[in-house]
Amino acid sequence: MKEAVQLHKDQFIEELKQYLSIPSISSLSKHKEDVQRAADWTANALKDAGMENVEVIPTNGHPVVYGDYLHAEGKPTVLVYGHYDVQPEDPVDLWDTPPFDPVIRDGKLYARGATDDKGQLFIHIKAVDLLMKEEGELPVNVKFVIEGEEEIASPNLAPFISENEGKLACDAVVISDTSFSEKGQPALCTSLRGALAMELTVSTANSDLHSGTYGGGVPNSIHALVQLLDSLHGKDGKIAVDGFYDGVPEPTEALRNEVAEVPFNEERTKQELDLEDLYGEEGFTFQERVGIRPTLEINGITGGFQGEGLKTIVPKQASAKISCRLVGEQDPQAVYEAIENHINKNKPVGAKVGLHQYIKADPVAIDSQNSYIQAAADAFENVYDVRPLFPKEGGSIPIVEVFGRVLDAPVVLMGFGLPTENLHAPNEHFHLENFTKGIETVCEYFKKL
Amino acid sequence: MKEAVQLHKDQFIEELKQYLSIPSISSLSKHKEDVQRAADWTANALKDAGMENVEVIPTNGHPVVYGDYLHAEGKPTVLVYGHYDVQPEDPVDLWDTPPFDPVIRDGKLYARGATDDKGQLFIHIKAVDLLMKEEGELPVNVKFVIEGEEEIASPNLAPFISENEGKLACDAVVISDTSFSEKGQPALCTSLRGALAMELTVSTANSDLHSGTYGGGVPNSIHALVQLLDSLHGKDGKIAVDGFYDGVPEPTEALRNEVAEVPFNEERTKQELDLEDLYGEEGFTFQERVGIRPTLEINGITGGFQGEGLKTIVPKQASAKISCRLVGEQDPQAVYEAIENHINKNKPVGAKVGLHQYIKADPVAIDSQNSYIQAAADAFENVYDVRPLFPKEGGSIPIVEVFGRVLDAPVVLMGFGLPTENLHAPNEHFHLENFTKGIETVCEYFKKL
Repeated sequence: MKEAVQLHKDQFIEELKQYLSIPSISSLSKHKEDVQRAADWTANALKDAGMENVEVIPTNGHPVVYGDYLHAEGKPTVLVYGHYDVQPEDPVDLWDTPPFDPVIRDGKLYARGATDDKGQLFIHIKAVDLLMKEEGELPVNVKFVIEGEEEIASPNLAPFISENEGKLACDAVVISDTSFSEKGQPALCTSLRGALAMELTVSTANSDLHSGTYGGGVPNSIHALVQLLDSLHGKDGKIAVDGFYDGVPEPTEALRNEVAEVPFNEERTKQELDLEDLYGEEGFTFQERVGIRPTLEINGITGGFQGEGLKTIVPKQASAKISCRLVGEQDPQAVYEAIENHINKNKPVGAKVGLHQYIKADPVAIDSQNSYIQAAADAFENVYDVRPLFPKEGGSIPIVEVFGRVLDAPVVLMGFGLPTENLHAPNEHFHLENFTKGIETVCEYFKKL
Repeated sequence: MKEAVQLHKDQFIEELKQYLSIPSISSLSKHKEDVQRAADWTANALKDAGMENVEVIPTNGHPVVYGDYLHAEGKPTVLVYGHYDVQPEDPVDLWDTPPFDPVIRDGKLYARGATDDKGQLFIHIKAVDLLMKEEGELPVNVKFVIEGEEEIASPNLAPFISENEGKLACDAVVISDTSFSEKGQPALCTSLRGALAMELTVSTANSDLHSGTYGGGVPNSIHALVQLLDSLHGKDGKIAVDGFYDGVPEPTEALRNEVAEVPFNEERTKQELDLEDLYGEEGFTFQERVGIRPTLEINGITGGFQGEGLKTIVPKQASAKISCRLVGEQDPQAVYEAIENHINKNKPVGAKVGLHQYIKADPVAIDSQNSYIQAAADAFENVYDVRPLFPKEGGSIPIVEVFGRVLDAPVVLMGFGLPTENLHAPNEHFHLENFTKGIETVCEYFKKL
C-alpha cells in the first residue's frame, strides 16, 4: 500500500488540516456548536470512506459518531474507537502559531488535536478509504465508534456501550490514542493507569477582608488551602493519604525489568523540558513513577487577587483542581473517600472545605500475548522494520476498561503519536511520517487479521 | 455649623456621588484616564471651595493635586492629605449594585472609594467650602495634598514631599483615611503597621506537561509553591521565617491594657463575617494580632488550569502575592531579605523561584498627647458627645511615616470610616451620618487650632 499512500497523502493531509481547524473543545460550553460541527465532519469523512449506516447519535452530552462495513463474511470484526474532541488551547499565548490554524513545519503538523486524537483517528478513516478505493472491499468487518467527550472523561460513552452491546459486538477493539516509546520505536501499550479527578474549595469569611484591619486575626482561605494541599505528599515524594496505596501491587522483579526496557534518557528529558531536576516517589525509577505507580497531581490553583499589581486582602475563597493516576487494584471511589477523609481530618481552623468529584476510571492491564495484539505488532514490524515494545502507559483512557469488560473483546492500543508531541500543551503536533506510515500499518493489520 | 451642614448636605452628597462615579483605579493601567479625570475633578472641587494656587502636578505616575489658603496670619498651618484613587472593584459579581454607580441605602452611600478615601477626603473639602461660604475666611492656614497612588503604595509621593519640603511646610498633617473603633465611638489612630508586599513565582518545566505521561516523575510548580507557602507559618500561627520577628517589641503590660480597651465582640465579628473560628498567632488576643503584631498574608494565588472542568496537566508555573504588616523597629528591607533567604533555603527539588518586591513602608507610632491630636479629640467630643479612643491600627498608610519625618510635623489620623464599611471589598460604603458630622467636626477642629 506504500505507493497508494504516497499518491494520496497530500490530499489526506489537506483533509486533516480541515478537521483540525474545528475548535471542538468538549470541556467549554461556548464551543458546543464546534463540537457538533466536528461530529458532522467525522460522519461525512466516514461516508466518503465508504462506510455504511453512518449516524451522528445524540447523547446527554456531545454526540457519538457511528459507521460500519460488515461485508467481510467469515472475517473478524474490529471496532475502531477514537475521539473528535480536543483539549482547551490555553495558555494560548504560548503557541507559536494559532492552535486551530494548522501549519506544517519540519514535517510536523501543528494544531490542537493533531496527535490527540484527530490525527491518529484519521489514520483509520483514511486506511479504510484507501482499501475501499484500491480493492473495492475491506479484508475485515469494521465498526467505528467516535466520541466527542474523551477529554472530559467520556461521561456518556459507557452507558452508550452498555445500551448498544449487540450493535457494537466485535472481536477486538482498536484504539490509536497512545504513543511510540520514542521516534522510530513503535509501542503497543499493555497497561493504562486509572484516573480520578476532583476540585477542592476552601472558604473562610463571607467577603474578602482588608489585610490591615483583619490580617493575622482571621483565617485566610489560601493559607488553609496550601496547608491542605501540602499535606497530601510526604517528604519522600509518597502520597501521604491514609489508604491511598491500598490495592497498589508491589512491583515484581520481572515487571521492573520490563519497565526498565522502555527507552529513557534522563539528561535529554531534562534538557528538552528545561528541568533542573526530576522528582518523584523515593525508591522508584522515572519509568516506574510515570508508568506503574499511582500519582496525585495538582493541576490548577486559584484564589484571592490575581490581577496586575497587588491588593492587600485576606481572601475569602481558594480552590484547586487535583487528579490522580491509579494502578493495579486501586478502587477510584475508595481513593476518593480516602482523600476526603484526609481533608476532613486535616481541616485547618476556620476553614470550610468542599470536594467535588469530576471523573473516575479503573486501571487496565492487557495481555500482550493476545493474537490481535501480536498481529498488530507484526503489522508495525512490516512497516517500521522494528518490533514494537509493550510498555505500561502512565495515561488513562477511561473507556478502555469499559470496552474490554462490556464487549468482552481484547483492546489493541496501537498508538502513532510520539511522547514529545505536546499533547494537552501548547504547540501540540503530529509527525506526518507517522501519519502516512500509520495508514500503511493499519492497512497491513486489517489484511493480516 | 450644624445648621449650615444640614442646609447644604443634599448638595454635598450629590457632588460626592459624582466624585465616586469616576473609576479611578490606580493599579490598572486601563483606568489611567479615569485617574486623571478624578485628579481634575478634585482640583475643581478645591477651586470651588475657595482654595488658591490649585494645581494638578504631574509625577512619574498619577498626578498630585495641590491647593492652599494662606491668609490666616499668625495661625497654624494644617496640611490635609487624602487620595482620590481607589482599589480595583473585583470580584465585581459580589457587589449588590455596580461599584461606580453610587446609591444610598439605609443612610449609607455604596460605591468603591466611598469610605476609602474619597468620602473622607471630601469632608475636608466641604468643611473649608462651608467655612469660606459662612465666614468669608478660614480660621487656619490650609494646604491640600491629594494623591492618586495611595492604593499602589504611593511610589511618587515620597520624592514629591522631599522635593517640595518648603512648599509643604506645616504645623500638622491631618489625614482622614482611618476608622472609628465602632459606630458612635470616634478614634484617633496612634499607630500604623508598616507594609511589605511581593510576588513569588515558581516554575518547573518549559511547558505544561501531560499528567499521564509525566505526572509523578517531574516536579510540579504548584506542589513546589504550596510547599514553600505552607512553610511560611508554623502550627502555632507564628511566621516561621528566621529573622522575621527581629525588631518586634515584646508588648508591655500597659500596651496590652490599652489595646484591650478597643471594643471587640468576638461572637458578633464571627457572625458578621460568617466565620467558623478566628485564627492567629498563639498567645495574643484578636486586637493584638490585628493591631500590634506583624503578619504575613497570602493575598492571591494562581497556577495551572483554572477554567471550567478539568485539564490533567503538570503545570509549568504558579505564583502567589504575599504581603506583610510590620511593627516596632522591623525593617521592611531586612524582612524582605529574610523571606528571600527562607525561600531559597527551602526551595523544593526542580523548582526555579523568583521574588519580586512591590512595596515597603516603615511602621509608625504617634504620641497621643500632642496638642494637635488633643484638639482633634476635643472637636470629636463636641460633635459626637464622646471622647475618642487612641487605638493602634493594623493597616498601613505608607506615606504617614514620610510626612512626619520630612515635614517634622505631628500627623493627626482623624478617621471618619467604620471598620464594617467593606473597604477593599465588594459593597464598600460610607455612613452619611459620619459624612455630615465629619464636616462639623473638621470645622470645629479648624476653629479650635
